[in-house]
Amino acid sequence: MYKIAILGASGYTGAELIRIINNHPEMEIEVLAAHSKAGLRVDKVFPHLRSLELPTLIKIEDIDYSNIDLCICALPHKTSQEIIKRIPTDLRIIDLSADFRLENADDYERWYGNAHKALEVQDEVVYGLTEFYRQEISGARVVAGTGCNAATGQYILRPLVEKGVIDLENIILDLKCAVSGAGRSLKENLLHSELSEGTNAYSVGGVHRHLGEFDQELSKIAGRAVNIQFTPHLIPANRGILATAYVNGNYQAVREALSQRYENEHFIHILPSGETPSTHHVRGSNECHIGIVSDRIENRCIIVAALDNLTKGSSGQAVQNANLMLGIDETVGLSLVPLFP
Amino acid sequence: MYKIAILGASGYTGAELIRIINNHPEMEIEVLAAHSKAGLRVDKVFPHLRSLELPTLIKIEDIDYSNIDLCICALPHKTSQEIIKRIPTDLRIIDLSADFRLENADDYERWYGNAHKALEVQDEVVYGLTEFYRQEISGARVVAGTGCNAATGQYILRPLVEKGVIDLENIILDLKCAVSGAGRSLKENLLHSELSEGTNAYSVGGVHRHLGEFDQELSKIAGRAVNIQFTPHLIPANRGILATAYVNGNYQAVREALSQRYENEHFIHILPSGETPSTHHVRGSNECHIGIVSDRIENRCIIVAALDNLTKGSSGQAVQNANLMLGIDETVGLSLVPLFP
Amino acid sequence: MYKIAILGASGYTGAELIRIINNHPEMEIEVLAAHSKAGLRVDKVFPHLRSLELPTLIKIEDIDYSNIDLCICALPHKTSQEIIKRIPTDLRIIDLSADFRLENADDYERWYGNAHKALEVQDEVVYGLTEFYRQEISGARVVAGTGCNAATGQYILRPLVEKGVIDLENIILDLKCAVSGAGRSLKENLLHSELSEGTNAYSVGGVHRHLGEFDQELSKIAGRAVNIQFTPHLIPANRGILATAYVNGNYQAVREALSQRYENEHFIHILPSGETPSTHHVRGSNECHIGIVSDRIENRCIIVAALDNLTKGSSGQAVQNANLMLGIDETVGLSLVPLFP
Amino acid sequence: MYKIAILGASGYTGAELIRIINNHPEMEIEVLAAHSKAGLRVDKVFPHLRSLELPTLIKIEDIDYSNIDLCICALPHKTSQEIIKRIPTDLRIIDLSADFRLENADDYERWYGNAHKALEVQDEVVYGLTEFYRQEISGARVVAGTGCNAATGQYILRPLVEKGVIDLENIILDLKCAVSGAGRSLKENLLHSELSEGTNAYSVGGVHRHLGEFDQELSKIAGRAVNIQFTPHLIPANRGILATAYVNGNYQAVREALSQRYENEHFIHILPSGETPSTHHVRGSNECHIGIVSDRIENRCIIVAALDNLTKGSSGQAVQNANLMLGIDETVGLSLVPLFP
Repeated sequence: MYKIAILGASGYTGAELIRIINNHPEMEIEVLAAHSKAGLRVDKVFPHLRSLELPTLIKIEDIDYSNIDLCICALPHKTSQEIIKRIPTDLRIIDLSADFRLENADDYERWYGNAHKALEVQDEVVYGLTEFYRQEISGARVVAGTGCNAATGQYILRPLVEKGVIDLENIILDLKCAVSGAGRSLKENLLHSELSEGTNAYSVGGVHRHLGEFDQELSKIAGRAVNIQFTPHLIPANRGILATAYVNGNYQAVREALSQRYENEHFIHILPSGETPSTHHVRGSNECHIGIVSDRIENRCIIVAALDNLTKGSSGQAVQNANLMLGIDETVGLSLVPLFP
Repeated sequence: MYKIAILGASGYTGAELIRIINNHPEMEIEVLAAHSKAGLRVDKVFPHLRSLELPTLIKIEDIDYSNIDLCICALPHKTSQEIIKRIPTDLRIIDLSADFRLENADDYERWYGNAHKALEVQDEVVYGLTEFYRQEISGARVVAGTGCNAATGQYILRPLVEKGVIDLENIILDLKCAVSGAGRSLKENLLHSELSEGTNAYSVGGVHRHLGEFDQELSKIAGRAVNIQFTPHLIPANRGILATAYVNGNYQAVREALSQRYENEHFIHILPSGETPSTHHVRGSNECHIGIVSDRIENRCIIVAALDNLTKGSSGQAVQNANLMLGIDETVGLSLVPLFP
Repeated sequence: MYKIAILGASGYTGAELIRIINNHPEMEIEVLAAHSKAGLRVDKVFPHLRSLELPTLIKIEDIDYSNIDLCICALPHKTSQEIIKRIPTDLRIIDLSADFRLENADDYERWYGNAHKALEVQDEVVYGLTEFYRQEISGARVVAGTGCNAATGQYILRPLVEKGVIDLENIILDLKCAVSGAGRSLKENLLHSELSEGTNAYSVGGVHRHLGEFDQELSKIAGRAVNIQFTPHLIPANRGILATAYVNGNYQAVREALSQRYENEHFIHILPSGETPSTHHVRGSNECHIGIVSDRIENRCIIVAALDNLTKGSSGQAVQNANLMLGIDETVGLSLVPLFP
Repeated sequence: MYKIAILGASGYTGAELIRIINNHPEMEIEVLAAHSKAGLRVDKVFPHLRSLELPTLIKIEDIDYSNIDLCICALPHKTSQEIIKRIPTDLRIIDLSADFRLENADDYERWYGNAHKALEVQDEVVYGLTEFYRQEISGARVVAGTGCNAATGQYILRPLVEKGVIDLENIILDLKCAVSGAGRSLKENLLHSELSEGTNAYSVGGVHRHLGEFDQELSKIAGRAVNIQFTPHLIPANRGILATAYVNGNYQAVREALSQRYENEHFIHILPSGETPSTHHVRGSNECHIGIVSDRIENRCIIVAALDNLTKGSSGQAVQNANLMLGIDETVGLSLVPLFP
């Protein structure tokens, strides 16, 4: 049994990691750390985990790493880099924050507003979009979990850019995002009274931080600068991202690019012609469902993708990457059937 | 007091008409008709209307029109045209169905799949988007209430097409629609269990019927065929449409076109720079809020509009049009402050 | 036009007061005050009020009372008494906090944990349950708005205790409460992620503060100590309280007591035999719906009441009381048809 | 691998059985049958099961039972008994309908309104409340899965009646029930528009059918007729039952009765003093959480229990019973960590 330490266990991605790893046949949770909740039993922070046998939450500075096979950090960005630079340099790490997703420190500072303080770690980092960095992740010391929106969008766009089947100047991504993506933070707009029964756009106009990842990754694939339009919307739901992509390209070519790319992927499902996905149908699972539709206007396609932001978009991805890093079959522990209704 | 007959009073738009007209100082509800519920008191169909003094529901064929100043039909399409052709031809009518929205009978048949059976009425019809057909509506015998999605989108797009400030080949409208737009119909996908806590696209690829209205209206303005891309999404909320439009055009020109067009409109509000609207903030009101944002990509704008599909998108629009038709000030009875939270 | 000052306009009851008073034909909002939001336009705090013409928020200490006919305080308890004792003593006040609901200062301290600091005001206070203190409210200088849960329960219980038709030793009140009752406060359990899609009891075992009101009022009526059992539950909805009362008494006597008591009340509706109410059907209105059912066990009745906590349970009650205090017909401005769906 | 047939696989309990059994290490799904959906792949009925390898839905009459180790019937009551009487009489069966829950045919007819047509099967039936019929279930040919409400209430009440620590004349059970308990049926009150954002009581006054189970079971334990009061309420959530029980009895005795009874139970958790459960924290799991609180009134206790109606209340219970019937450890396949948020 590989021993896992979870740093930042009191947030939603922390809880989701516990949910998944607790049932993983080859991993066990050895350490749970969380700053402000240190000293508490997990069920005081997450009563839904009451029946599990779990270590008590400790302070991050009190972790004994000698026994740990892999660290997963579910900490806020900026904090995460400070912590990770102090973890023993031979320990393998998956970081779920934004701190190591951008290769270029200037890009990081531009999107996140603070300087990168752990550049020495950055060199060892692999971007954690499993299906596209599988081999690198297997050998990586540090894996940067992707943004949940960035993952959803890239599952649609990467194969299309790779195959050159769409116009790179006209890529629009309209996202509908559940609220858990914002974490367990006390903000007025996350209150039930403010959020239920309505929807709104946010970070409109190309200012959402996940664009840093899109820019980096799509440009790398295309070999030229690719800038997409990206508008997220908050919907009254707790889990799930639905991405609607508008692209210019031939429908058959688009469908073929996506179908071929994912035909051997365990967790990515291209829906039959005529079907589009729903976030209802991926809840709690590590699956991504993708539907492709031809518009009435020639050479335009709409591609819709759905995944659970906390699972495939974050903690499920982390476990999938952890499997690779530890030499376990990639799908182990991730047979999470969607919870419906 | 003008006497109003509501035909099709057992659906959500019927109930919304009752809610509004009940408090209207110059109208009173004289007749409520509904096919399958005829004979029932309204509170048996809508317990929330329990405290109002309302006529009992009667059959449509039993209506005595002699006393009526205006009919509002909130019937399903196809049924509506059958009923309306039998209403006395000197009576003024507002129809909320799709039956008279499209001027061209072939267009109607193409989008709705059935032949137009009341062409003699069609000639007297004015399209009911108040702010753009005000004068024609005032004198019309029959007004065709717009589709709720079509209204929301046109509030964004019409001024832009009129002023010629956007590229007509690249108009994308991504809608997030609350479920009451689908009516009080017993369909599996409208069940709480199937709908709450998730979202999905529907009618993807240019097949939603409201495109007939967009095509007709925008092409008329442009003087050439204008086809937009339009993807609606169902969100877990009961009221509200949020439309996110992606257009190519200069931000200042776009903002100016919209601001100028609506500066004297009572119910359409252009938000200050930097703000975008939320369906939370228009619930139950006759308001439409529009926010305009410049994308990071040059010459691209995102425009977001929010309205309540049952009010401004349907029954509120109907009362606004009824005011015009009856010579009442357009805003009377429509000071409906949004209900929040 | 009577000029109203609202102190504490940035919370939900403040917003609800604005919604109602804005459309009131004999009142106008002269002052809006709020501590931390002073200086802001109302739409910065409540975007749903964007289209109204309202005074800018000011500091409470900057209010010029010379022009004001009535103050409504929608402030937190403890703060409220501090503010109210400094308001000119000839000004009429409705206080929505808990600070003046309990006549006895010891009771106040016991339930609220802090000493009563405005005993000089307490002597002038009338308890604000309109239907039972109508005459006193008309002449009162200060009216203490009731707790929303306390109002709902009393609408069921008062007539039964008055008529002596139920066993005073066995009164159980099980409440299902929407979240806006907790205000616009940043608490983890009020986040959408924590609250939607589930329910839980809180303040279990007779510790909820509104019991102070039940004890005071029911004991006063009975002429002896009456203690009820009261368990509130938080449900995933924004507005509404559903109270289910379990009492021992003859069904006919119970129904008669309630029917007779409310037959001339404008806002309280006893449902026909066989029907029970729903919070869906009172949303945004000043109505209370009450259904009465005989249990299969002899001499047991279940009474269910529904009202909107922000309207009839708080701000609607306040306006109803304000009407009385200002000599306006009690129902003016309160023809708020429930918003459904 | 034991081979399982699921009859009635197109409802929510059917889908939940598939979710659980699909990951069960000692069971496999051999047959999925459903009347109206026969011939369809499961993902056409339940898109969330898209990624599973499952047999195509067949007609119930086409099932080949020769290969089957256990049948689970998730059919509507009345239909279920017709089907089950035609299943080979040596096959072991778990029935999730109400058809075999009541031992006495008259009771069945009284509560369900139709005659019992499979009395020959009834003799072989064991009531499926695992923790109380463990041994009988192990040897039973037919197990009648309990009503979900009946299970929740009995988890609270059985130990108290067994130990004689509460007054049998004053037992009140107030339930808050999520909508999936009503199944995937097209009823107006189950629409999102009718249900979300509000709550109401139903089957008030002792008429809910699950009372048949309470009467039977509690009377059997007490050795005398025990009738409880029971009021269910529909809450806007998809999964979960919260039962609030009001009983007269000594707090310590009540807590002791419950704690002792469940101290060795894997799935039933008595919460520490001062805590009460939430349906949020059992979603998708086979757990039942129970909190016990002393009321301020002497000798009164409030006990609150939470479980997921589709899991512990139905399909999880079925798998737990199937484990017993097949000689598998009772907890196998049921380590379903609650999904939160």
